[in-house]
Amino acid sequence: MTRVGILTSGGDCPGLNAVIRGAVLKGTTVHGQEFVGFLDGWRGLVEGDVMELDRPTVRGLSHQGGTILGTSRFGPYQGPNGGAENISRTLARLGVDAVIAIGGEGTAAASQRLHDEGIHIVGVPKTIDNDLDQTDYTFGFDTAVEVATEAIDRLRTTGNSHKRCMVLEVMGRGAGWIALHSGTAGGAHAILVPEFPESIEQICAWVNSVRERGRSPMVVVAEGFTLPDMTHAHSTKGLDGFARPRLGGIGEVLAPMIEERTGIETRATVLGHIQRGGVPTAFDRVLATRLGMAVTDLVDRQEWGNMVALHGTDIVSVHFDEALADHKTVPVERYQEMRVIFG
Amino acid sequence: MTRVGILTSGGDCPGLNAVIRGAVLKGTTVHGQEFVGFLDGWRGLVEGDVMELDRPTVRGLSHQGGTILGTSRFGPYQGPNGGAENISRTLARLGVDAVIAIGGEGTAAASQRLHDEGIHIVGVPKTIDNDLDQTDYTFGFDTAVEVATEAIDRLRTTGNSHKRCMVLEVMGRGAGWIALHSGTAGGAHAILVPEFPESIEQICAWVNSVRERGRSPMVVVAEGFTLPDMTHAHSTKGLDGFARPRLGGIGEVLAPMIEERTGIETRATVLGHIQRGGVPTAFDRVLATRLGMAVTDLVDRQEWGNMVALHGTDIVSVHFDEALADHKTVPVERYQEMRVIFG
Amino acid sequence: MTRVGILTSGGDCPGLNAVIRGAVLKGTTVHGQEFVGFLDGWRGLVEGDVMELDRPTVRGLSHQGGTILGTSRFGPYQGPNGGAENISRTLARLGVDAVIAIGGEGTAAASQRLHDEGIHIVGVPKTIDNDLDQTDYTFGFDTAVEVATEAIDRLRTTGNSHKRCMVLEVMGRGAGWIALHSGTAGGAHAILVPEFPESIEQICAWVNSVRERGRSPMVVVAEGFTLPDMTHAHSTKGLDGFARPRLGGIGEVLAPMIEERTGIETRATVLGHIQRGGVPTAFDRVLATRLGMAVTDLVDRQEWGNMVALHGTDIVSVHFDEALADHKTVPVERYQEMRVIFG
Amino acid sequence: MTRVGILTSGGDCPGLNAVIRGAVLKGTTVHGQEFVGFLDGWRGLVEGDVMELDRPTVRGLSHQGGTILGTSRFGPYQGPNGGAENISRTLARLGVDAVIAIGGEGTAAASQRLHDEGIHIVGVPKTIDNDLDQTDYTFGFDTAVEVATEAIDRLRTTGNSHKRCMVLEVMGRGAGWIALHSGTAGGAHAILVPEFPESIEQICAWVNSVRERGRSPMVVVAEGFTLPDMTHAHSTKGLDGFARPRLGGIGEVLAPMIEERTGIETRATVLGHIQRGGVPTAFDRVLATRLGMAVTDLVDRQEWGNMVALHGTDIVSVHFDEALADHKTVPVERYQEMRVIFG
Repeated sequence: MTRVGILTSGGDCPGLNAVIRGAVLKGTTVHGQEFVGFLDGWRGLVEGDVMELDRPTVRGLSHQGGTILGTSRFGPYQGPNGGAENISRTLARLGVDAVIAIGGEGTAAASQRLHDEGIHIVGVPKTIDNDLDQTDYTFGFDTAVEVATEAIDRLRTTGNSHKRCMVLEVMGRGAGWIALHSGTAGGAHAILVPEFPESIEQICAWVNSVRERGRSPMVVVAEGFTLPDMTHAHSTKGLDGFARPRLGGIGEVLAPMIEERTGIETRATVLGHIQRGGVPTAFDRVLATRLGMAVTDLVDRQEWGNMVALHGTDIVSVHFDEALADHKTVPVERYQEMRVIFG
Repeated sequence: MTRVGILTSGGDCPGLNAVIRGAVLKGTTVHGQEFVGFLDGWRGLVEGDVMELDRPTVRGLSHQGGTILGTSRFGPYQGPNGGAENISRTLARLGVDAVIAIGGEGTAAASQRLHDEGIHIVGVPKTIDNDLDQTDYTFGFDTAVEVATEAIDRLRTTGNSHKRCMVLEVMGRGAGWIALHSGTAGGAHAILVPEFPESIEQICAWVNSVRERGRSPMVVVAEGFTLPDMTHAHSTKGLDGFARPRLGGIGEVLAPMIEERTGIETRATVLGHIQRGGVPTAFDRVLATRLGMAVTDLVDRQEWGNMVALHGTDIVSVHFDEALADHKTVPVERYQEMRVIFG
Repeated sequence: MTRVGILTSGGDCPGLNAVIRGAVLKGTTVHGQEFVGFLDGWRGLVEGDVMELDRPTVRGLSHQGGTILGTSRFGPYQGPNGGAENISRTLARLGVDAVIAIGGEGTAAASQRLHDEGIHIVGVPKTIDNDLDQTDYTFGFDTAVEVATEAIDRLRTTGNSHKRCMVLEVMGRGAGWIALHSGTAGGAHAILVPEFPESIEQICAWVNSVRERGRSPMVVVAEGFTLPDMTHAHSTKGLDGFARPRLGGIGEVLAPMIEERTGIETRATVLGHIQRGGVPTAFDRVLATRLGMAVTDLVDRQEWGNMVALHGTDIVSVHFDEALADHKTVPVERYQEMRVIFG
Repeated sequence: MTRVGILTSGGDCPGLNAVIRGAVLKGTTVHGQEFVGFLDGWRGLVEGDVMELDRPTVRGLSHQGGTILGTSRFGPYQGPNGGAENISRTLARLGVDAVIAIGGEGTAAASQRLHDEGIHIVGVPKTIDNDLDQTDYTFGFDTAVEVATEAIDRLRTTGNSHKRCMVLEVMGRGAGWIALHSGTAGGAHAILVPEFPESIEQICAWVNSVRERGRSPMVVVAEGFTLPDMTHAHSTKGLDGFARPRLGGIGEVLAPMIEERTGIETRATVLGHIQRGGVPTAFDRVLATRLGMAVTDLVDRQEWGNMVALHGTDIVSVHFDEALADHKTVPVERYQEMRVIFG
């Protein structure tokens, strides 16, 4: 009987528990696998800290946010017991034949390296930012977009009542997917993403145009958005030459700038961690369950060094190195398509 | 300036308003089109019953359920003013150059025929059942699944408190997509779809196995599911030789049969129309908005006889006849993948 | 140390777990009590079937629907081990000094009798129907109203799209509180409650008047509503002389009658069990937590024969017999206040 | 026929539209009143800026957040046209006989003064903070608590996954009602309110105790909470001698202090404006509708100088000066009741 260890690594993400449940249900029923969970991501693997995972353990997990295994930013090459050789010994001692690593880009890179060094490892891509290439969507993203969209729906009525401009800052450091989708769903008048800097003059032009039509402007901004012309008072310059906010998030930087330039009372809300917790949407639960089930097939077929991914409506498998080749950012057509109706 | 008429036909579906809004916003801004809406589906087109659609009209529509244009099951070849020739004259009289028909299979078939007879027509696929081929998902489906999943979440706690078997009947006459996805998301112990009849003995075996593990069975059934061995008392035979329920839906047929055979108190809930109304999920709003925007490109490029569709993360265009070639039902692998963990 | 047994009896109700959690947290921390739970309502008490309840057991229960203790319609005078004398022996054997019974009218009546026969018992009122006198609201009611209101919100958009009359049947056999509140919140055009029969002619007059204003009629009906003039075909006569539906609920009886008389396409939805399951609203969680905390004070002060209740914003205590004296139905002023704006 | 003007003043609050709808529906139907709305609160009254309010205008408003009349912080004694004498002339010119002012403490005080100077005015209390005396609850509060509770539910799973302490800052400058209720509903481990300062040592003792039990601490803090011992680096001293945060909200002040003292990674979320916008809960819609209906009775009976209020389950009327006599803060018993189970 193959004994499989699962770990969840990096930032929390709605659907992690559904992946675990899907893997355990299919693995035990179809492939005759048995499962342990490594606690707190790679730390549990490195330190041999495990819990048993059987059918009763994963009961009711599909709708539960978070991860029963815990997560951390600890890496597999960290500490005195880290590294492929030590991990190999630890796995042998625990009688674990294969590892399923659920995580983001960092996890995939570490998994690739461990795979190169002989560890039997497969992966499930995870990021609420949706910025992993080689998969149409990552689980958790749909929930984050839904939470952000509900926030826009609420802010919009308050904006209208007060004739204010409302700015909502959502997650997305390197990619603006959450901003793009929630802004589209919520009918935002401007959507600002890291991929496409816009000047404060342009933003204010949109805001003014909305106001002239008698409406209250709604601006959605990804945390990683930068102004090309951010003034010194609000920012420091990053290595890429672009200005970065000094205090608070970009939302809190933009609001007073918009208010000052347009004369329209402007309020910022930073949505923060509520985007990555709680009950997953049905979409994310289905995707996560399918990925969890499919990754046990990879183990069964010993397709080490691969991770599962969504292509259209199919779950497929891709090599870690393929998955890591590109960062999936918002393409210019998707941005332009929305930009033409800003304002 | 191209003048475009939009109509929404067939059953209500969350996201219709978002399609309309997307089309009007992009069409007016980018392509210099102007828009009218035909009221109550094809009836408005046949009878020349229209409303103006401009930017203020579509304000705030992205998050609004239903359709501001109204819908009906009226067909374009119906009544004294129906048929391509009459419609052609009506369009000329109204100064409308092109028609965007948002609807399901029947609408696509009618659109194809009108196209063949010279009407400038393009389409947007719509069905909460998700059973249209040539598009990965149809808008409205995600909302229906979310509503059904929330119902499962609620029923599950009550089932557990009373140690009852709960049966939830969801929409899906010819295809079991809503049942499959909501059942997967909600962690159902059996998912019954029209595509794959199961015997009452098999269903009760699953129910009993759940009870033996100390849990309360949750069964999700699509309205079109049939028992191969449905007894005369509960059904009449359809043309396909399969039994059909006589009174109430299949959920209300199954519940007493399960209770009688297993001795487990069983309750049925028929979710009904709340699956096709109300605020769309963010996923559906984004998909609907993108489809609405893209269909104005078809008009602009005069690609008559095509409809927009989702392939992976891209909006593409497909011919009506291609779209009509196949009915998209749950494939056997998707069903088997879940079936192995039933019970 | 006082050892207290808790049981939950009768129909499931959102907030039961929050009551249990509130009692255990306050009882253990403030009064030095310790707790056991009787399984499946009175059955667990009668048969001595218990589980330990300590702080870890009640972790995370405030937002969890259902009851971890299980519930049933078993009564304390039922079976060979029922009755005050047997129960007294069972409690002594288990070392349990006092009983907290969470339940509805039947539970209160049984508790009163057990109290008269010397059992140390106190109560927490529970009914999603909100029909217990001596308490402003019962927990679970607010959640049921919220679920019903969300259903109305969804049905309304579909009704408007199709120009249909939508009928929603909600819970409430003897009292129309859920219908009254959800109908008010959802802006229904007619609210039909058991307390105030209305003729089908009157109902159709309201429906027609709505249609004449160009809107789609929304009718909310409590399951216990009866028509004074229900025709034989749809009903049998009850002992009170009023007609009762024969097949399906009252919603399914009304819909075809309305459609036949008004010519307006009419659809019924029966909401059913999803009203009594799932995550409680914040209101119900707060109320349930406060009641659970307060009932441990009754135990501490040995105020046997009392139950906790909500008066305004205060939790007070009332005798079981007081609580049982009257059934709280919708008062005529509350009904009339809404009735004047029907149609 | 009495012509009544309605205005909504101060901060946005879910349920304002339901009050307006309730008043117009009952006033026109029962009392033969007709209605106008003053735009943007007192500004519309002072400047004579009005819109007609009839039955079609208020269609569908019960579930709509915000206020169709707009709101502002403008006062009735402000500007060249302010003051009772000018207002009296404006009302006469518009043919308006009576004013319904929906607002908070400031609005009630201004209304009292206008009443003393002869204006026919009645009121509806409004504050999401729930801090108005003489009414059990104000509409909007329940929605704010629900939104905050949903945020806690989401943050809790993320806290558990990362073993972090999560701090949620909710509204409540002078009264901690939203924090108290959402913290109770969400099962927070510490609830910090303006009424009861707690030292950072005490807060960290609670946080540590939670961690020692193996759980992730959840702290809910009202924006008006202050630390008696806030260090200079984080605050400035207010006139009351208590320290006040200098940058960001109190949540952002507390998080690093907790992290530094306990060594537990701590994250703050400031919920902000989403608490006061969007779809109201069913509870708030019912309360708001009833208040709106009842205030037209005050107009009908010419009970000038009164506002409507909720006592238990009844809508009653109270004088403005009574209503203004006391600020309703969290009483010590309610706080202590929860405090004993903190940690």
